[in-house]
Amino acid sequence: MPTILPVRLQQHPEKLVLLDQTKLPVEEVFLYLDTRESIFEAIKKLRVRGAPAIGIAAAYGMYVCLSQNTYPSLDAMEQDMKALKEYFASSRPTAVNLFWALDRMEKTFHENLGKQGITQTQLLAALLQESNQIFLEDQAMGKSIGMHGLSLFDKKKQWGVMTHCNAGGLATSGYGTALAPLYLGHEQGYQFKVFSNETRPLLQGSRLTAYELAKGGIDVTILCDTMVSLVMKERKIDAVIVGADRIAANGDTANKIGTSGVAILARYYNIPFYVAAPSSTFDVATATGNDIIIEIRDGDEVVNGFGKRTGPKNVSVYNPAFDVTDATLITGIITEKGIIESPNAEKIKNHLSI
Amino acid sequence: MPTILPVRLQQHPEKLVLLDQTKLPVEEVFLYLDTRESIFEAIKKLRVRGAPAIGIAAAYGMYVCLSQNTYPSLDAMEQDMKALKEYFASSRPTAVNLFWALDRMEKTFHENLGKQGITQTQLLAALLQESNQIFLEDQAMGKSIGMHGLSLFDKKKQWGVMTHCNAGGLATSGYGTALAPLYLGHEQGYQFKVFSNETRPLLQGSRLTAYELAKGGIDVTILCDTMVSLVMKERKIDAVIVGADRIAANGDTANKIGTSGVAILARYYNIPFYVAAPSSTFDVATATGNDIIIEIRDGDEVVNGFGKRTGPKNVSVYNPAFDVTDATLITGIITEKGIIESPNAEKIKNHLSI
Repeated sequence: MPTILPVRLQQHPEKLVLLDQTKLPVEEVFLYLDTRESIFEAIKKLRVRGAPAIGIAAAYGMYVCLSQNTYPSLDAMEQDMKALKEYFASSRPTAVNLFWALDRMEKTFHENLGKQGITQTQLLAALLQESNQIFLEDQAMGKSIGMHGLSLFDKKKQWGVMTHCNAGGLATSGYGTALAPLYLGHEQGYQFKVFSNETRPLLQGSRLTAYELAKGGIDVTILCDTMVSLVMKERKIDAVIVGADRIAANGDTANKIGTSGVAILARYYNIPFYVAAPSSTFDVATATGNDIIIEIRDGDEVVNGFGKRTGPKNVSVYNPAFDVTDATLITGIITEKGIIESPNAEKIKNHLSI
Repeated sequence: MPTILPVRLQQHPEKLVLLDQTKLPVEEVFLYLDTRESIFEAIKKLRVRGAPAIGIAAAYGMYVCLSQNTYPSLDAMEQDMKALKEYFASSRPTAVNLFWALDRMEKTFHENLGKQGITQTQLLAALLQESNQIFLEDQAMGKSIGMHGLSLFDKKKQWGVMTHCNAGGLATSGYGTALAPLYLGHEQGYQFKVFSNETRPLLQGSRLTAYELAKGGIDVTILCDTMVSLVMKERKIDAVIVGADRIAANGDTANKIGTSGVAILARYYNIPFYVAAPSSTFDVATATGNDIIIEIRDGDEVVNGFGKRTGPKNVSVYNPAFDVTDATLITGIITEKGIIESPNAEKIKNHLSI
């Protein structure tokens, strides 16, 4: 079992339990939520983050809110379910996983509503089962990615592993993607020494990845993004594993800004570079990375992000949120189905059809 | 003339004038100092920083302090000069330029003390001339580096130039080293668009370089160190110019942490990478970069530097202060004597003997 559960359900009384990620790494605060307003706020304010974790939170959130009431009729219950769905969906309007999870809940509601003589209690039980299913599917996904990733290592030595940003348990139901092999290996007695790039500007690597790995008992060291070249030169890194936001049909991979730089340095120092992501991350409608538009964010995140101004006013700031790593720089892509070595369009097509 | 004078002398009444660099980029505060305690404090607390600027501050500081008094005898003046030298030298015990500048002042004092019938006023005039000389030699050095560096550009287009850390006017008497070609070119109508890497952990690129370039009227954009690969891929960079802390006999160059990573990315994207430094930066007693010991600094600079904790407590932090860029990655080294293209031990030896 993962040591981090950023999102889970408490029963009797029903609560959505979230680890408030905006408070990390200074404070570890768990929120016990049972009102629609507080759940909406938690998603909107990034107290829960990462596509899988947001989906799970919304599904559990819908179940918890519906379970608070006794409705005058099934129609009234259906109206409220729809209102909840619409309300939660508006909390992060670009989060695809949020809509996907809410759609699954709505579909489950309607399938059961059609059954002869169904009661509110039975409808709630169906929704509970569906939300648990979403949670468990995500854990199984992480575990599969972890198992495949772990095949790259053995127990004969301590492995130096670098990661960038946070593709860990905090973004998911506990195992994560890039960090899943580390958690799984740690349970089985593998030895890792992890280097977590702090990942400017939002510092997910130092705030989140270092927090969750240390919490899980894994040896982790924070370093600035400027230090990647030196630690690689010092032969402290045996492999790099990162997550992915979107992978094009040819294997070009969009991920947090800085990932492509780490990949180029890994290539220079002959260190294998892996991407770990569920197969749903492939966007085969996008031919290559050149077709991916880079999101440019507000410059204040860079020069005014941590309570103290770090750049002059009225100076331009460039703040792209992610970059694209060429497939040629990727040693392998690890999915829940296995590893695509030296990925290209044909291998990816075959892999997805497994 | 440079637009930034981080250290200068005011006369009638005599004051050492420092731009307080610890207040940048939020406030632009000039300090007018005429007591030994305040000058000691300013050097110790990094209100003035950069080897050349510290040397100039100490030399002017000695002159200013001696000029405040009328001594009962030349012996008493000599005693005070020695006391000042010892006191200032203890403010930054590893700053070689500090000792070098104070030694020059002491030597000037003694040379003049030997002259028949010399007065306190005449001794002070000699010290004023020597400290001005130290200042002017540094400006001439920056200007020469700037002229040679500028030969890499022309006025036919706008040049995208990347720099890392601060090797600019703030560290010197105004022109700097890596930034000298930009200031000189800007005066002459060359067009530059500069990208200044923020340079974690101490953010000299966003706090200092962006401040001084903007002040000098040069188009500058701040970016995080994670964004270097993307801006290079987007063909926004025509050349990289950085400073140097120490250059080995074969051209391997120690400079602020992250420099070697920028050099590797520049090589990957076929962008020329230049080092700009006075010829005194060469340490021919050091054969290669492998002989340079990397200073490791306190981890708190990384996780507790912004006024807000950005990493969990009790997690390891790796904080090397600089790295070494292989000579093979350097397109050329720009000194006050010219440019050493594709530097190696033989070319460097010849260059230094010019």
